[in-house]
Amino acid sequence: MRVVIIGGGFGGLAVAKALGGSSHEVTLVDRRNFHVFQPLLYQVATGGLSPADICAPLRSVLRRHKNVRTVLAEVTGFALNRKIVQLADGELPYDVLVVSAGARNHYFGRENWEASAPGLKSIEDATEIRRRVFTAFEAAERESSAEVRQALLTFVIVGGGPTGVELAGTLGEIANDTLRHDFRGFRPEEARILLVEGGSRILNAFPDPLPEFAERALLRLGVRVRTATTVENMDATGVNLRSGGQSEFLPSRTVLWAAGVQASPLAALLEAPTDRSGRIAVRPTCQHPNRDEVFVIGDMAAFSTPAGKVLPGIAPVAMQQGAYVANAIQANAGKPDRPFAYVNKGDMATVGRAAAVADFGSFHLTGFVAWLIWLFVHILFLVGFRNRVLVFVHWAFQYFTFNRGARLIAAEGARPPSAVLRPDR
Amino acid sequence: MRVVIIGGGFGGLAVAKALGGSSHEVTLVDRRNFHVFQPLLYQVATGGLSPADICAPLRSVLRRHKNVRTVLAEVTGFALNRKIVQLADGELPYDVLVVSAGARNHYFGRENWEASAPGLKSIEDATEIRRRVFTAFEAAERESSAEVRQALLTFVIVGGGPTGVELAGTLGEIANDTLRHDFRGFRPEEARILLVEGGSRILNAFPDPLPEFAERALLRLGVRVRTATTVENMDATGVNLRSGGQSEFLPSRTVLWAAGVQASPLAALLEAPTDRSGRIAVRPTCQHPNRDEVFVIGDMAAFSTPAGKVLPGIAPVAMQQGAYVANAIQANAGKPDRPFAYVNKGDMATVGRAAAVADFGSFHLTGFVAWLIWLFVHILFLVGFRNRVLVFVHWAFQYFTFNRGARLIAAEGARPPSAVLRPDR
Repeated sequence: MRVVIIGGGFGGLAVAKALGGSSHEVTLVDRRNFHVFQPLLYQVATGGLSPADICAPLRSVLRRHKNVRTVLAEVTGFALNRKIVQLADGELPYDVLVVSAGARNHYFGRENWEASAPGLKSIEDATEIRRRVFTAFEAAERESSAEVRQALLTFVIVGGGPTGVELAGTLGEIANDTLRHDFRGFRPEEARILLVEGGSRILNAFPDPLPEFAERALLRLGVRVRTATTVENMDATGVNLRSGGQSEFLPSRTVLWAAGVQASPLAALLEAPTDRSGRIAVRPTCQHPNRDEVFVIGDMAAFSTPAGKVLPGIAPVAMQQGAYVANAIQANAGKPDRPFAYVNKGDMATVGRAAAVADFGSFHLTGFVAWLIWLFVHILFLVGFRNRVLVFVHWAFQYFTFNRGARLIAAEGARPPSAVLRPDR
Repeated sequence: MRVVIIGGGFGGLAVAKALGGSSHEVTLVDRRNFHVFQPLLYQVATGGLSPADICAPLRSVLRRHKNVRTVLAEVTGFALNRKIVQLADGELPYDVLVVSAGARNHYFGRENWEASAPGLKSIEDATEIRRRVFTAFEAAERESSAEVRQALLTFVIVGGGPTGVELAGTLGEIANDTLRHDFRGFRPEEARILLVEGGSRILNAFPDPLPEFAERALLRLGVRVRTATTVENMDATGVNLRSGGQSEFLPSRTVLWAAGVQASPLAALLEAPTDRSGRIAVRPTCQHPNRDEVFVIGDMAAFSTPAGKVLPGIAPVAMQQGAYVANAIQANAGKPDRPFAYVNKGDMATVGRAAAVADFGSFHLTGFVAWLIWLFVHILFLVGFRNRVLVFVHWAFQYFTFNRGARLIAAEGARPPSAVLRPDR
């Protein structure tokens, strides 16, 4: 059968790998030539890792499988009746289609906020955040006005989920450890790091007492957590926060968005109803509501468990759904004979240096041990042995030297911001 | 004394480090927040290393020296009479000024060629070349016309110096080893790699028989060397080559420029005569022709040896000049008591995988041994212990797996080229 997979993320790659060496003619389509290990994007955003350290070229991941073709192309639409994927520059016919194009940042109707508050879903997002964070410290070094410097050294992270917590924790490390001796005009510890969460607590998906532990750990890193607080408005100069009926303007030059994601716009082109996050409500078999030959998995799918709970948009769900779909294609020519069942192996989140929270259902872990497990699991699941070793080396250095090497303020691949003296640019 | 150093390259960093801990008030000004280890830029351009692997944040390099301030700023001019450096957003007074702003690509009046043939002087150059090289292979995979595919798989490197030779050799490796199993629509070995040199031989600065050895080594990698050949013209579709009175158009979508560099435009603002490469003819003490308190070192300086030879723009020259100037500042309050003398410790160039040429004056080395020495020396001089280990790990993997991990087609920090389906962009 001709199997077309859209997206080289955790879901799509799982399908492609599982079908590698099979009799099927598999085509993996992605707009980029690499897989991104999204759980570590925040480390690129904070200068701990280089983009390539958490990316794996799709071709080299799939090189051994001669029946798998990787196509670098832009999907523009679908002709579901003719079983065709439309590309910006061509068409791809399929017998079975697996759509796993992932998610992007969601600003809930305030898309104009993105300019002031970038999210963290792509390598570009990560390097843009990296640029803003370290540029803010550089600007503070040269700023004479104490007021402006305070705004430059105020970092607001919106959203108290794992991404927000991990970003905030790492920023705390940067201010207190990484940059401690680097500046002459101010003390990086002066930096104010604020984690804003609309709900009553951070890490909402985690059971007690993990959120409380995380909050205490963040406090030790100098991160102030503001729960039950929402963002009313924001611009380049700061954010308007609202909590307990009170409104307050907080001057800040660096606001980061970790408050929500929505499905890839491809979902809207699949002729199926979508939820408010733009996800497609798939069948218990991960099949498209009314197309047996179309599967939707990962962040694009709103999969409801028998208990009525919608599975979160995390890597393990996408990977398990990918393996499930691949099996259905292998074993039953694309006709699933049983529903998909997610096996939750546990949730984890790091809280800065040497601390993490882990929920394994039956038991919880916090602190150093949880952090070691987090380290182990993430290195284990990193695609590509090379990356595993590299990331391990990076982390070993970070742990013992408190330093971060990938602190480049560079539009790598683009031209540098300032070009006054670069007629050659 | 107030010492202002412009440029955090090999020269400027050598001065700053040597003056670290001294009684002088040292300010290092750079447009970027990191030092770039330029000899390895070609490895970033060819996906072997990540930008951060060959960069070191200036602040962390100089963090221990409390008398050294790092300023991220754009130098716009000089008021030499008032002993002031003008910044885009301020001024810096000095008692001693060290200008080492390096060089940029030189197209000898054909600046319009840069669009078709990027050079390799900055991190942005490197990631741009990386993007073009790997995009060409991706496009070839999807190209139906054999003619266009041939043009996509034709890589022309202009300039047979060390940079050109190292780029060509690595491209040879990529086509023959790295990508061998990655594509389905064509065989990467089909790629044509052409090294064009106007002179009678490549690696002109090296004594016989090293150039001949390098040429043979390149041939083994599938690189064809065209000496006594000049570029008449070029555009996005290819290059016009001229040799032996014959003119020929070679269709190529990827042309790389390694044919020449010129001094930073800052040189033109120093009120001193410059040579055709824009360099300032400094005194034997590296001093500005008519300003005792101004030193010009590195690629910006045209330093003539007693033998009348002008020193090449390479790292060892800049580093030795930096140490010399620092010593003059330390020992004699900025009044040199002896001329600068360059000690040539040898020249080296790699020729693809596991081969290099090394000229140590009294004796030469070629092949694997020369390559091992090259490896050792470059890791030794890499700034920052962390980078040394990381680069070593990268190279170990490359050597044994033939793979390259940093093959990202990404405008890291910028937005991705295609945005059709990214309303969030």
